[in-house]
Amino acid sequence: MALPKRSEDYSAWYNELVKQADLAENSSVRGCMVIKPYGFSIWEKMQADLDRRFKETGHVNAYFPLFIPKSFLSKEAQHVEGFAKECAVVTHYRLKNAEDGSGVVVDPTAKLEEELIVRPIWSTYKNWIQSYRDLPLLVNQWANVVRWEMRTRLFLRTTEFLWQEGHTAHATKQEAITETEQMLDVYADFAENILALPVIKGIKTANERFAGAVETYCIEALMQDGKALQAGTSHFLGQNFAKAFEVKYAKKEGGLEYVWGTSWGVSTRLMGALIMAHSDDQGLVLPPRLAPIQVVIIPIYKKEEELTAIDEKANVWVKELRAKGISVKYDNDDKYTPGYKFADYELRGIPVRVAIGPRDMQNGTAELARRDTREKLTVDSSQLTALIPNLLDEIQQNIYSKALKFREDSTYKVNTLPEFKEVMIKGGFALAHWDGSTETEERIKTETKATIRCIPLDTTEEDGICIYSGKPSKKRVLFAVAY
Amino acid sequence: MALPKRSEDYSAWYNELVKQADLAENSSVRGCMVIKPYGFSIWEKMQADLDRRFKETGHVNAYFPLFIPKSFLSKEAQHVEGFAKECAVVTHYRLKNAEDGSGVVVDPTAKLEEELIVRPIWSTYKNWIQSYRDLPLLVNQWANVVRWEMRTRLFLRTTEFLWQEGHTAHATKQEAITETEQMLDVYADFAENILALPVIKGIKTANERFAGAVETYCIEALMQDGKALQAGTSHFLGQNFAKAFEVKYAKKEGGLEYVWGTSWGVSTRLMGALIMAHSDDQGLVLPPRLAPIQVVIIPIYKKEEELTAIDEKANVWVKELRAKGISVKYDNDDKYTPGYKFADYELRGIPVRVAIGPRDMQNGTAELARRDTREKLTVDSSQLTALIPNLLDEIQQNIYSKALKFREDSTYKVNTLPEFKEVMIKGGFALAHWDGSTETEERIKTETKATIRCIPLDTTEEDGICIYSGKPSKKRVLFAVAY
Repeated sequence: MALPKRSEDYSAWYNELVKQADLAENSSVRGCMVIKPYGFSIWEKMQADLDRRFKETGHVNAYFPLFIPKSFLSKEAQHVEGFAKECAVVTHYRLKNAEDGSGVVVDPTAKLEEELIVRPIWSTYKNWIQSYRDLPLLVNQWANVVRWEMRTRLFLRTTEFLWQEGHTAHATKQEAITETEQMLDVYADFAENILALPVIKGIKTANERFAGAVETYCIEALMQDGKALQAGTSHFLGQNFAKAFEVKYAKKEGGLEYVWGTSWGVSTRLMGALIMAHSDDQGLVLPPRLAPIQVVIIPIYKKEEELTAIDEKANVWVKELRAKGISVKYDNDDKYTPGYKFADYELRGIPVRVAIGPRDMQNGTAELARRDTREKLTVDSSQLTALIPNLLDEIQQNIYSKALKFREDSTYKVNTLPEFKEVMIKGGFALAHWDGSTETEERIKTETKATIRCIPLDTTEEDGICIYSGKPSKKRVLFAVAY
Repeated sequence: MALPKRSEDYSAWYNELVKQADLAENSSVRGCMVIKPYGFSIWEKMQADLDRRFKETGHVNAYFPLFIPKSFLSKEAQHVEGFAKECAVVTHYRLKNAEDGSGVVVDPTAKLEEELIVRPIWSTYKNWIQSYRDLPLLVNQWANVVRWEMRTRLFLRTTEFLWQEGHTAHATKQEAITETEQMLDVYADFAENILALPVIKGIKTANERFAGAVETYCIEALMQDGKALQAGTSHFLGQNFAKAFEVKYAKKEGGLEYVWGTSWGVSTRLMGALIMAHSDDQGLVLPPRLAPIQVVIIPIYKKEEELTAIDEKANVWVKELRAKGISVKYDNDDKYTPGYKFADYELRGIPVRVAIGPRDMQNGTAELARRDTREKLTVDSSQLTALIPNLLDEIQQNIYSKALKFREDSTYKVNTLPEFKEVMIKGGFALAHWDGSTETEERIKTETKATIRCIPLDTTEEDGICIYSGKPSKKRVLFAVAY
């Protein structure tokens, strides 16, 4: 079944693509998803690459228990009492604006029938950290998380999702800040070099900051519909968590001191970013570095003996490509026609397709098709396996360049509110002056749905006036309507 | 702090070892555990090896949502109704013997305050399988599971644990049986070659079989206290799940047919097996193939210039060993004394320790200590890195041989009930004749706590009489008191 067109219904296109490319599906439980084998194999590649980066920067993995329903504990009232003191308990699933305009409050009508308790990582750290010898503590975990979400969307917002969460503790403030920035760089480098996704590094405004953080760093990307997507965050926690959970260490020179914390995470949301940044009306477009299958070879034949000859040639290619570390599939399964296979592999985003038929065999050629540009070219079959490594690099680079060009073309320096609104309607990033107040930020959001995605790290100071209030401003910040 | 001795208090030894070797700890939530970084790094090695084996046998990974508390759904009564029909709902956490002696019934006093719903994998398969083209479906997932457990023990029995669960669907009965047996072989080979754990392959009696399975295959191992531990299971499901969830496929030759299913799994329980099979009163003993650090090098020095000279030599060794694919740590951290480090690495089970001091530097020697036998030998330092690969192989082999010898010495062919009871008291496997009835099996369990671990696959037929009932029997089965 053909996909809806992005230009006609972006949202339907996304949903259908996720389903038809066999990435994920809704489970019978509201808001939960099944990550299907093909989708999971892409997530596994992301995981493997990130995990290697975490380990190279000195981190180790661990596993903390999932929160559990509080009712499990209700028979041990005394224990609960001690426990509840040091645990975040989820009791409600919605916030609302306070009636007196004083900000945001818990919506009392949205009480969970049963409270949930969040993984008590910092309460564990209290036992793990006694002295400077125990620092830095550099721990990561890969886990599933359950969050109450009212409106769900495969990969982008699901009740349960998979993520990694790093939680580190340090002896000094500077060391913790360096860690926070290092992990932001790890994420940005991964996004650009593996996901082929250009990102803007920045810090969040106080209003958008993670509760409990002193500073929230983030990477922001632009999707093809002009909406922004936050692709990862890294938080400098100061001594906030250490103080809340009484995590102190004995200094080498004597005396006790609270530790300095960081936390950082990315989730299966990156799958959504990957899909929405690169894919087209024919289906998924995968950067070669994330493609579980990088090259597929499809034989075209009528007679058995034609297939036998093609098999022989293809098996040599498979062997040669694997020796170069390229993941390749030779699909001579006769359950499906070549036409079906072409469409299916296109839908699944396989970067390079090789087709070979009896005429190619006669001429010593093969047909090479790249998924990103959908170009086809006929090549000398003896050159095929030598061409492919460079072609894969070129495709990786091209997907990135295309996304970067799209972002550049969709990023506007705006100086007035009407210009700003225009950008928010057509989609894209707006670099605009802002007076620095939460009040202005909130009003812009109410009027335009746009939020400040970040204050870019590479911003330069310039005098200007806030697009909304007209008050003076020293730098432009990055606005967009976001997922 | 010294560990309790195995001979004095095996259970306290196990608990302390898990804690002191930094493998895991109880979380503040009853029955749940935190898997600490060192323990997790061993689990990661198990995972990586098993995952490679699963993929080599054609399986792919996926992710199914965790069960969720049923109360989450209670607002959508109609949906729940449809859903509940196809879902296992956990409502109770204990079974008991029926008062009329008719078997086992649910204990009505053990009702969960809130029902849990089990991952609905087979209900998903209904949508994934339409035709013979979709078969075989070979899916695995790595996930966390929550199970209500009354008595918990780190790794062996916890409310939440990590596992993998394979769920496959096939066109024919024979193919499903072959898959079941193949995965049993994968587990057995992994246990013997990686965990260095000798296992007995067999099938469960009807009484011990997984509910819903036609046949349950298992691998059984013996711990140092003479108790058995089930290390993995592989189930042939027949068409039971297919029928329960209406999973049919269109055959190539026409017509609809129910698929044939298998499922198979191992869990973090393997960490418990690993610890209890090999470790000693000094701490963990790790088979080199699972050791996150295989070799540790410790400098012994008084003066800075001594350290400088040792550093230089050690760094060459590190480089040479890494080039051979060996994971090595040079610990010249001055926060701890060499004596502390020796004890700590012994506790953590590092297979090979190298110590080098000023006298060794003069003599061109180094001290090599192996963890399994605790032997030390002085070697020519120029030979050190050449010796280590063979030494690691020898240690891996020796740990296996020692466990195998222990099992052989602790396995008894018994022909009478008094002999049988004696074995069950001192600990070990008993190979005994059994009349094949569940009644006898249950009575033996009540009187001796022993269960039939399995009917070994390699058993040979022989005429005998049941040790309990005196009725005729055709083969011996394997009994033990089990974890």
